[in-house]
Amino acid sequence: MTAPSSTPDRPRVRLKPKANARVLRHGFPWVYANDIVTDRRTRKIAPGSLAVLEDDKRSPLGLVAVNPNSKIMCRMLDRDPASDLTPEWFETRLGRALELRERLFDAPYYRLIHAEADGFPGVIIDRFGDASVIQPNAAWAEAHLDTLTDALVKVTGVSCVLKNASGRTRTLEGLDDRNATLRGQAPAAPLPVPMNGATYMADLTGGQKTGLFYDQRPNHAFAARLVHPEAQVLDVFSHVGGFALAMLAGGAASALSVDGSAAALELAQKGAEASGVGDRFATRQGDAFEVLTALGQEGATFDVVICDPPAFAPSKQALDAGLRAYERVARLAAPLVKPGGYLGLCSCSHAADLGRFREASSRGIGRAGRQAQLIHTGFAGPDHPQLPQLAESGYLKAVFFRL
Amino acid sequence: MTAPSSTPDRPRVRLKPKANARVLRHGFPWVYANDIVTDRRTRKIAPGSLAVLEDDKRSPLGLVAVNPNSKIMCRMLDRDPASDLTPEWFETRLGRALELRERLFDAPYYRLIHAEADGFPGVIIDRFGDASVIQPNAAWAEAHLDTLTDALVKVTGVSCVLKNASGRTRTLEGLDDRNATLRGQAPAAPLPVPMNGATYMADLTGGQKTGLFYDQRPNHAFAARLVHPEAQVLDVFSHVGGFALAMLAGGAASALSVDGSAAALELAQKGAEASGVGDRFATRQGDAFEVLTALGQEGATFDVVICDPPAFAPSKQALDAGLRAYERVARLAAPLVKPGGYLGLCSCSHAADLGRFREASSRGIGRAGRQAQLIHTGFAGPDHPQLPQLAESGYLKAVFFRL
Repeated sequence: MTAPSSTPDRPRVRLKPKANARVLRHGFPWVYANDIVTDRRTRKIAPGSLAVLEDDKRSPLGLVAVNPNSKIMCRMLDRDPASDLTPEWFETRLGRALELRERLFDAPYYRLIHAEADGFPGVIIDRFGDASVIQPNAAWAEAHLDTLTDALVKVTGVSCVLKNASGRTRTLEGLDDRNATLRGQAPAAPLPVPMNGATYMADLTGGQKTGLFYDQRPNHAFAARLVHPEAQVLDVFSHVGGFALAMLAGGAASALSVDGSAAALELAQKGAEASGVGDRFATRQGDAFEVLTALGQEGATFDVVICDPPAFAPSKQALDAGLRAYERVARLAAPLVKPGGYLGLCSCSHAADLGRFREASSRGIGRAGRQAQLIHTGFAGPDHPQLPQLAESGYLKAVFFRL
Repeated sequence: MTAPSSTPDRPRVRLKPKANARVLRHGFPWVYANDIVTDRRTRKIAPGSLAVLEDDKRSPLGLVAVNPNSKIMCRMLDRDPASDLTPEWFETRLGRALELRERLFDAPYYRLIHAEADGFPGVIIDRFGDASVIQPNAAWAEAHLDTLTDALVKVTGVSCVLKNASGRTRTLEGLDDRNATLRGQAPAAPLPVPMNGATYMADLTGGQKTGLFYDQRPNHAFAARLVHPEAQVLDVFSHVGGFALAMLAGGAASALSVDGSAAALELAQKGAEASGVGDRFATRQGDAFEVLTALGQEGATFDVVICDPPAFAPSKQALDAGLRAYERVARLAAPLVKPGGYLGLCSCSHAADLGRFREASSRGIGRAGRQAQLIHTGFAGPDHPQLPQLAESGYLKAVFFRL
């Protein structure tokens, strides 16, 4: 296989003989630095450059994005080493991703691009109707941002494209953290987002604390099935009201959202009003552990309690402390659940796998003196596809218990 | 704690000092034979007898059902050692189980009792509207079958109760395999069962090959989201048409069901007609592997392909062979999926955990020369609750890929 004459003359990077070329041929998307022959020439490749990856016999394996400063030195972009990142390349992949979402969802509110699994290593694109937010968390994407944005507008028809540069991995890639409006006009006010019968308010320019996450959609939907017209529900680490509004839309009598962020709770309140359930919705700002403890002391009980905390175990180093924190959440939340009521516990920690997280949760419930049935286990929604080869790292888990 | 005078004088069984009484106090439901002090008196306890379990200091831990011939010698029935299996005992537990199902489902078609997690060790009860099927797969339940049946009729109002004695564990418990009609009249014809917008036909007296399983309901529902008005779908190991009918009800253009059992396919055909989609439904009887191979040779392709085989890895001994069989299913099925189409693969093997099953499936897809996104992972529905302490053994997994 030789590159056609139209293809730019790419640098080449080569696997060491010990490296496993077979897993790459079978779809594994990353090459670690210690599997690459790193000579002076390789070290001089600018982060985000494109290169042709070769096996140790110099057979080309594909087109990769290279970052000599990262542990993941190469990310596979295309198994065809002769391919080039033309507008059509971007349009084809975006079109394939769009087809999946249009099959799955009635309205254009979803994660459109979920990085590696959608063929865009390190890139996240969320769609909010006529607006879209790109997170180019890899240097190659930053370098091709203009082509990507044009393709996005062409394929989806969105009129506004924002760039969110708050991703932590951008620093590793040598990228800045400046947000930008790439196309159209940034919305002046939070946008209404319909999901599960509720309306959420998404502040696309306010950053992570006030944005919106689509990943919990199927778990919100499951929680909504648990309520009844007299149900009082509690949503801890509520952010913009994810579980609370879905349960109110599902028919709950009242919901209390707890979060540390006043800005998030304000959006939750606006969402409740937009959903027509503002009169059944209340918020309480504060540290979740303190509020859980206080509610316990007040003797408050609920028909459904959900806790969706931030990642307590974001890394392997933080695993033990993280699992203790998940256990503590369960121990403090279980006493707030009425007999026969439901407790939903979530983890978005990569390091805590489903088995460990479930065990920590069930230990916490046991320490609170309660017995539990596990009735449902959920993950991120299907607009968050995974490469099967990376599926172990599926970060989001939700376990629902009946106490 | 002493038993009130009304409680019968129960035999007592005692834990060895090395046994972990704490896990029992925290909800683990089984005691293995090698954790019990087994003297002559213990060995003489009749299988299925009730006894009070004590820790090594003779403190009572609860009421258990004893089977001296089983590896699981004691199954916890009630943490209150003074409790008795009165009609009220059965009614309370059945009522609690019914409350969960009535919360979750619009119509009375569900698994009502899922053994340990619903407080009835070894007992399965499925409900089909006005009829119900009990599988008393433990000696204690057989001994109390009359009280259980009366309570079931009282709590649910069903008029027909059947006994299905085909469970393999009944032999271990020393029970026969004679089916029976316990109350009312056995239905003369297959019963219509509404699920996910389709109507399935359940032959309650025809045994396992022609009954109906509720566990795949949420996975059927997910598959139905993947179809479109031109979609041609294939359902292999189709049984009574589980996935096929749900996808037709979801709007697919046509479905082909493959199964080895003519009786099952006949019920699938009747279900298709009852669902009003008989003209879009076809069946093919035969060995699934052979039919998959033949379809590949014919060059047939489908928008959605589902394979829901019987347990290939029912035990640890069968794990390696089982995983090879799952890989083979994936390898034969993947070529039948159109580009951009979907492949759903299921496993109901206890021994093959989610990670191993997903890996075997993804290896098979790779061997077929296809790339895949993993878009969804599902388990048994919430009418199949689990004890968190036994959740590792959750048997049913469904993984959905986009190729």
